[in-house]
Amino acid sequence: MFPLSSLIRCHRHSHSRHYLLLHRLLKPFSSIATHPQAPPSSPLGDVPLSFPTYLICSSNTSVGKTLVSAGLAASFLLSSDFHPNKFLYLKPVQTGFPSDSDSRFVFSKLSSLASRRKIACSLLASDEVLQASRSAAAVTLPAGLAEDCKFGMFDLGSYTECRVLGEEGSAASELICRTMFAWKEAVSPHLAAERENGVVEDSTVLEVLQRCLLEAGLAKQNMNMFSVVETAGGVASPGPSGTLQCDLYRPLRLPAILVGDGRLGGISGTISAYESLKVRGYDVVAVVIEDHGLVNEVPLSSYFRKRVPVLVLPSIPQDPSNDLMEWFDDACVVFDSLFKIMLSAYSERIRRLHDMPKKAGNVIWWPFTQHKLVPEGGVTVIDSRCGENFAVFKVRNNEVITQQFDACASWWTQGPDATLQTELARDMGYAAARFGHVMFPENVYEPALECAELLLEGVGKGWASRTYFSDNGSTAIEIALKMAFRKFSSDDGSLSNFLSDDSTQRRAQLMVLALNGSYHGDTLGAMEAQAPSAYTGFLQQPWYTGRGLFLDPPTVFLCNNIWNISLPEGLLSHSLNSDEITFSSRSEVFELSRDKSNLAEIYSSHISNALTQNPESVGIIGALILEPVIQGAGGMLMVDPLFQRVLVNECRNRKIPIIFDEVFTGFWRLGIESAAELLYCVPDIACFAKLMTGGIVPLAATLATSAVFDSFLEDSKLKALLHGHSYSAHAMGCTAAAKSIKWFKDPQTNGNITSEGKLLKELWDEKLVSQISSHPAVQRVVALGTLCALELRAEGSNAGYGSMYASSLLKKLREDGIYTRPLGNVIYFMCGPCTSPEICRQHESDVAERSQLAKYPRTYGPDSTALIWPSGNEVGILSLGLLLYLASVFFRRGIGDLVFQEFQSERFDLGI
Amino acid sequence: MFPLSSLIRCHRHSHSRHYLLLHRLLKPFSSIATHPQAPPSSPLGDVPLSFPTYLICSSNTSVGKTLVSAGLAASFLLSSDFHPNKFLYLKPVQTGFPSDSDSRFVFSKLSSLASRRKIACSLLASDEVLQASRSAAAVTLPAGLAEDCKFGMFDLGSYTECRVLGEEGSAASELICRTMFAWKEAVSPHLAAERENGVVEDSTVLEVLQRCLLEAGLAKQNMNMFSVVETAGGVASPGPSGTLQCDLYRPLRLPAILVGDGRLGGISGTISAYESLKVRGYDVVAVVIEDHGLVNEVPLSSYFRKRVPVLVLPSIPQDPSNDLMEWFDDACVVFDSLFKIMLSAYSERIRRLHDMPKKAGNVIWWPFTQHKLVPEGGVTVIDSRCGENFAVFKVRNNEVITQQFDACASWWTQGPDATLQTELARDMGYAAARFGHVMFPENVYEPALECAELLLEGVGKGWASRTYFSDNGSTAIEIALKMAFRKFSSDDGSLSNFLSDDSTQRRAQLMVLALNGSYHGDTLGAMEAQAPSAYTGFLQQPWYTGRGLFLDPPTVFLCNNIWNISLPEGLLSHSLNSDEITFSSRSEVFELSRDKSNLAEIYSSHISNALTQNPESVGIIGALILEPVIQGAGGMLMVDPLFQRVLVNECRNRKIPIIFDEVFTGFWRLGIESAAELLYCVPDIACFAKLMTGGIVPLAATLATSAVFDSFLEDSKLKALLHGHSYSAHAMGCTAAAKSIKWFKDPQTNGNITSEGKLLKELWDEKLVSQISSHPAVQRVVALGTLCALELRAEGSNAGYGSMYASSLLKKLREDGIYTRPLGNVIYFMCGPCTSPEICRQHESDVAERSQLAKYPRTYGPDSTALIWPSGNEVGILSLGLLLYLASVFFRRGIGDLVFQEFQSERFDLGI
Repeated sequence: MFPLSSLIRCHRHSHSRHYLLLHRLLKPFSSIATHPQAPPSSPLGDVPLSFPTYLICSSNTSVGKTLVSAGLAASFLLSSDFHPNKFLYLKPVQTGFPSDSDSRFVFSKLSSLASRRKIACSLLASDEVLQASRSAAAVTLPAGLAEDCKFGMFDLGSYTECRVLGEEGSAASELICRTMFAWKEAVSPHLAAERENGVVEDSTVLEVLQRCLLEAGLAKQNMNMFSVVETAGGVASPGPSGTLQCDLYRPLRLPAILVGDGRLGGISGTISAYESLKVRGYDVVAVVIEDHGLVNEVPLSSYFRKRVPVLVLPSIPQDPSNDLMEWFDDACVVFDSLFKIMLSAYSERIRRLHDMPKKAGNVIWWPFTQHKLVPEGGVTVIDSRCGENFAVFKVRNNEVITQQFDACASWWTQGPDATLQTELARDMGYAAARFGHVMFPENVYEPALECAELLLEGVGKGWASRTYFSDNGSTAIEIALKMAFRKFSSDDGSLSNFLSDDSTQRRAQLMVLALNGSYHGDTLGAMEAQAPSAYTGFLQQPWYTGRGLFLDPPTVFLCNNIWNISLPEGLLSHSLNSDEITFSSRSEVFELSRDKSNLAEIYSSHISNALTQNPESVGIIGALILEPVIQGAGGMLMVDPLFQRVLVNECRNRKIPIIFDEVFTGFWRLGIESAAELLYCVPDIACFAKLMTGGIVPLAATLATSAVFDSFLEDSKLKALLHGHSYSAHAMGCTAAAKSIKWFKDPQTNGNITSEGKLLKELWDEKLVSQISSHPAVQRVVALGTLCALELRAEGSNAGYGSMYASSLLKKLREDGIYTRPLGNVIYFMCGPCTSPEICRQHESDVAERSQLAKYPRTYGPDSTALIWPSGNEVGILSLGLLLYLASVFFRRGIGDLVFQEFQSERFDLGI
Repeated sequence: MFPLSSLIRCHRHSHSRHYLLLHRLLKPFSSIATHPQAPPSSPLGDVPLSFPTYLICSSNTSVGKTLVSAGLAASFLLSSDFHPNKFLYLKPVQTGFPSDSDSRFVFSKLSSLASRRKIACSLLASDEVLQASRSAAAVTLPAGLAEDCKFGMFDLGSYTECRVLGEEGSAASELICRTMFAWKEAVSPHLAAERENGVVEDSTVLEVLQRCLLEAGLAKQNMNMFSVVETAGGVASPGPSGTLQCDLYRPLRLPAILVGDGRLGGISGTISAYESLKVRGYDVVAVVIEDHGLVNEVPLSSYFRKRVPVLVLPSIPQDPSNDLMEWFDDACVVFDSLFKIMLSAYSERIRRLHDMPKKAGNVIWWPFTQHKLVPEGGVTVIDSRCGENFAVFKVRNNEVITQQFDACASWWTQGPDATLQTELARDMGYAAARFGHVMFPENVYEPALECAELLLEGVGKGWASRTYFSDNGSTAIEIALKMAFRKFSSDDGSLSNFLSDDSTQRRAQLMVLALNGSYHGDTLGAMEAQAPSAYTGFLQQPWYTGRGLFLDPPTVFLCNNIWNISLPEGLLSHSLNSDEITFSSRSEVFELSRDKSNLAEIYSSHISNALTQNPESVGIIGALILEPVIQGAGGMLMVDPLFQRVLVNECRNRKIPIIFDEVFTGFWRLGIESAAELLYCVPDIACFAKLMTGGIVPLAATLATSAVFDSFLEDSKLKALLHGHSYSAHAMGCTAAAKSIKWFKDPQTNGNITSEGKLLKELWDEKLVSQISSHPAVQRVVALGTLCALELRAEGSNAGYGSMYASSLLKKLREDGIYTRPLGNVIYFMCGPCTSPEICRQHESDVAERSQLAKYPRTYGPDSTALIWPSGNEVGILSLGLLLYLASVFFRRGIGDLVFQEFQSERFDLGI
């Protein structure tokens, strides 16, 4: 039935002669690897899911990763069930080359096994090495040829092919083995790379790896395909740049097979390696160990509680001359099982990813979401996050996991880059293991104390003396209000009036002074302190009454390259010099010298008037509450800092306690640790949440002065502040907060901190921001700290416009790898306080690449803001171009200039 | 100055002859080890802090742990700085014995080094082996002697002593080396223990280890002391019972030294081992590796970011005949550095532990705490938690870390035992690494979906179709109220009235129907739904008005061994048969047949009357809200389930949406997953939090029926439920919840689940509970699920009584290892749904032990409830005895009987 002996033909090619031969398989690969500016066939960051791809890791070196890879290839290619198949073996990092080459090992073993076993269809096996260090390349190449060495690495492009004939006329299965980067010395890759002057950046390794997978997926031609990526050394061995491999490959989050250790001590090494993978967010699908007679699988299985199967391979012959053919035969049944487990885990994952949107639509009730308007297919499946990016499941032509920059910072909470996320993950494991959660009142434990101390030394410096913990911004505000009212009541002699049950007296309620457009949370107490809005109507909260005096604030914004103050109606009658309400730079807006301006006086008397209204009609003002500088949910409105400062002073003069709601603005969101510093004044009480934990778990803090604290000191427990939540000061939140607070402000860990240590570097290119502000489609721009917001003109009463516009915009942006959530016609981008320049450069180059594809003429769409945006072969709308343009200048001054010129050239006219 | 050659005298003793010789050093140790019922010198669970104790761990076997231990001993004992000193080397688990003995190695190397180096004071070194398996013992003992074998282990008690003379007349330093348990085969301890029929339980290992440390501390006689505990194999190698060593030693949470691996692949192994320690809550103070020429310390230091120093030992000679004397000399400087790092970390830790209460008192503002009443020294320093226990820092005679059972379940949140805590810790690391937190609306990710599905299949089964996530019980209630009012408004034709701005119409507000004594949270919306109380006064929340019709509920309790219904005043006029208001068993109270009783009719008409009051005066009832079965914060009041069922039915008939607040009662707190099941009725909306995540991070869920959900489906986004928090459905919370929900209900992981799978086993001994209920000092008892509460009679108007009583009670209990927080005169104990029988047995034996010390006659104190409680040589009050008595019967039927009889005997009369 099968030919008894297969015909083996092998080709071996050296550099520069392999292109033609490779042509049938894929386009010249090494050229892609070294020329990243070539047009990508798919967006970068995609990982194909149309076939299974596994990371093969191990607990240590020399425990048999490559044997497992080869065994899997044999199960897939040489059994009779699956034909014709294609197996891709990738070895991104190889040291000890060329004497050690795992891809050659897999190639040669499979070739031998194929000829040994009866195979149904032919096998075409190949082994390729893309790049090698000069020293490694010099071993295989004629003298002098390895001189042409870019970036310290040489385009080796060695290629070996072998064909094993199967049953006559049958189609051929394929084995593609590929070593991506190789070094000569048999040491850890970081050492070899350093010693051989051939360091390869993480991004290059990832990029080449992704392209290998994508190309193979495109070329699979209806064959069943299976792929493994074999790491070097143990799970936490450094890669060529020094980054640990478990961190290096994390953005792809491939499911992993852990090759454990069956020897004495191997239980521990296997479990620890597994835990290192877990605390980096990997899914380990199976563990494989070699039998050493110690039944290590028993304690391992017990540890895994059946969640991860443990497979045992027969003992590997120690004799180096053994060709392992018999061993592979013996191990065949184990590899077949392993292969089935992997295949079934893959199918299960794909099935779940497909089912998730529908299931979510059936069981979840999303906040702030009209479920009737969530379109079929409009649900985003987030497979994971890595630093600033979501990994999102998409069905394009095929299933992929693609990257989306989280430009809304997940409701403004996010701070960590990938490094901090890994650190926080380990810390979360530690905090849960050390404390879980423990009772807080009258107790002390390290994370709570450290966090409280850091808050008082940081955002509370100079004024706060106490930290009150709660769960979120809204509860922090409710606590702040209780504090403020008590302070006010104890300062105010009329306290007894309030306490009286007499109905006339009670009508003169305690109220807050607040600004229109403010937002402080969704629980009733926090809502009562904000002005009526869509969120406060009877249908939303029948109990809302709005217990405040709400003033219209003057706002500041950039328009036509000028910073303007927009005065509310009540102040419009005043005649002011233009230099009091227009500024050529943002810093002028914040200048303390404005205190001496006419405008300051006008503000002061305006506020004074408001505060002296009859308390019988409006209530007694017992607290001032405001968001310093920027009103977030109100639409990223920048309030005139002079107005807020005057407001604070007026209230302080009247002994009205001052609450700063820094839930959004705190922790470097506005480029400074506390936004209060931008106002040059301090509150009595301030609330923090969101970014405080780095964006990892909910935790809030209400800080207060000692005077506020003292107003609760009495002999009776009933006079204490009786507000608490079960998880007050929970150890995990406090641990995350302590870590993040320190991380963000330390120039050692946050490269964005200026030398003075008080400010973030300017993250937005001022010139570009001002040019955007001059665009006719743009109403206003505010760029401050990690935030860049712009309001698009939404003219007329076209009420449906906003929502439709936003939804198409959202969709386009997400296709282009940017996840954002506009606030009506206000669009914003937000990064983390330590988002790295590398990511900015990556965004920049992505956009630059795409802009080169722009060959479309400028046209106008149905409304005046429309303009062409090229995205593949689709035509988009202006603001998308504008936004991606913004994305291109994301974070860094100077970087954007180049891109800007691209846009201004004939190739693509943005219309700015 | 020093004698050039020291005189070495060695003694070697075999079993049964060593007592006399040991006499000077400590009392016969092996007798303590094998007779745990001997009176302890200190409470079990204490770890002394009066000297440094370190865990010596390693990333693998054979990387040099014992060399490090010996090097540290040399630094401490043989340098001229510290004299006379005492070094305790403990090897809890030794395999390969007697040919391998790490304690003998340390002993002999130190003896040799002492004689080689010039030492100031003499050194008395000893090596002792406490217990060995029969096979191991048989090697060293005369034939037949190893037959006397208890628990599979033999009291070997081999002892070797060696004295090295130093400078004449000087005091002697001491080296005590001790192997606790030894097995013959050189394999993993779990294998050796199993094969040699000598399994030692984890509790025994810990107990012997703790006693070794405590005894040594007591005997240190003003000498400087230092101690190391050397583990076997790698960090996650199994101990003798199969428990991983990092888990086995976790209750002591000793600071650790990690001996890493300097070989190829060693970076990975070292980092992974470190991470396994971290995700179990250990602090690693330093990492030590051997130099193998690969400069592994560079990537390791980079990984540790200076937080953990990495020290490099010189290469170890491979020749087995080398006595290592020169190597120790070469390595001396490294060991001296390491030793200083360890000493300084110890001092820093002690300093911080001492400072923490004061610092906390200065910067923290505790919830529900009158700071003026927090006594000096009244702050509990919680160093960590392990399962149900806090590890608390105490200064008794000396500093110790002591264990306290968390009997208030940290504000009723706690569920995990030590095993689940470890699992959750790893999952928390995973969730943080995989997701951190990601934006929720219109998105789906695995933990949120899985958690939502589990909730609907579990506590929402049969009625709920949607899950709305928020952060805590209070926010879950605010969301529930918004849901209920919308549902009511859309069902009710008078909706338009409410929407009108006409002031007359608006006065007829939407109100809740609720029960007096209820509690739903501290945010204003949740507070408004509860009856006026100490928490709702003007001084606490000036905005509170109490928007509800609050009914007095009939309560149920056990008193004098009878379950009684206490009717509120409004129902007292009805004449009822005693069989309608008294029951001989708790199950009768829950019987559905009571629906046909007169009482049901009385309830029904009572409620009906209340609901037909004039809406102009009381408002329109738009929701019913209640805590099913038990009102927690109200004082652990059990409400008559019949009354609640009738209430639900009456409201359902009137289309008033029903909200169950299961924040406290949910997830097995009352012995069943949802307390609603005890009422035999379902709500429209229910709130869950607290135990939902197993007690690890805040997360809440509001479940709703599809009819409630549908009332928000409109074409406008403004009709959606516009309530959300930044961390809605955060991945870590959902991951913890999904794990805990499954863990608690799975008989494989929760041994307390009955065979039917719907109920927890009865955790309290019914007979004892009923006897307590007959005690004159006890007003009432409620025992249900994980809760046992009793109300002490607090007669007269002695207002200050409660608080003083509670505070002394608190203090005494904590001294006795039980951390509780009474609710006024209501005292309760709470365990987790899967608290293991082992822990109960431990509590039982603790109390039994102490009760034997009771020799005091029964007396009466200044009030009638006083009785003697023996605690060391102090005299306490009755309720303390009662409580510890309760503690002794904690969780398990039957176990308590024995203890009860102890108390009833002449030795101690409880007066029950």
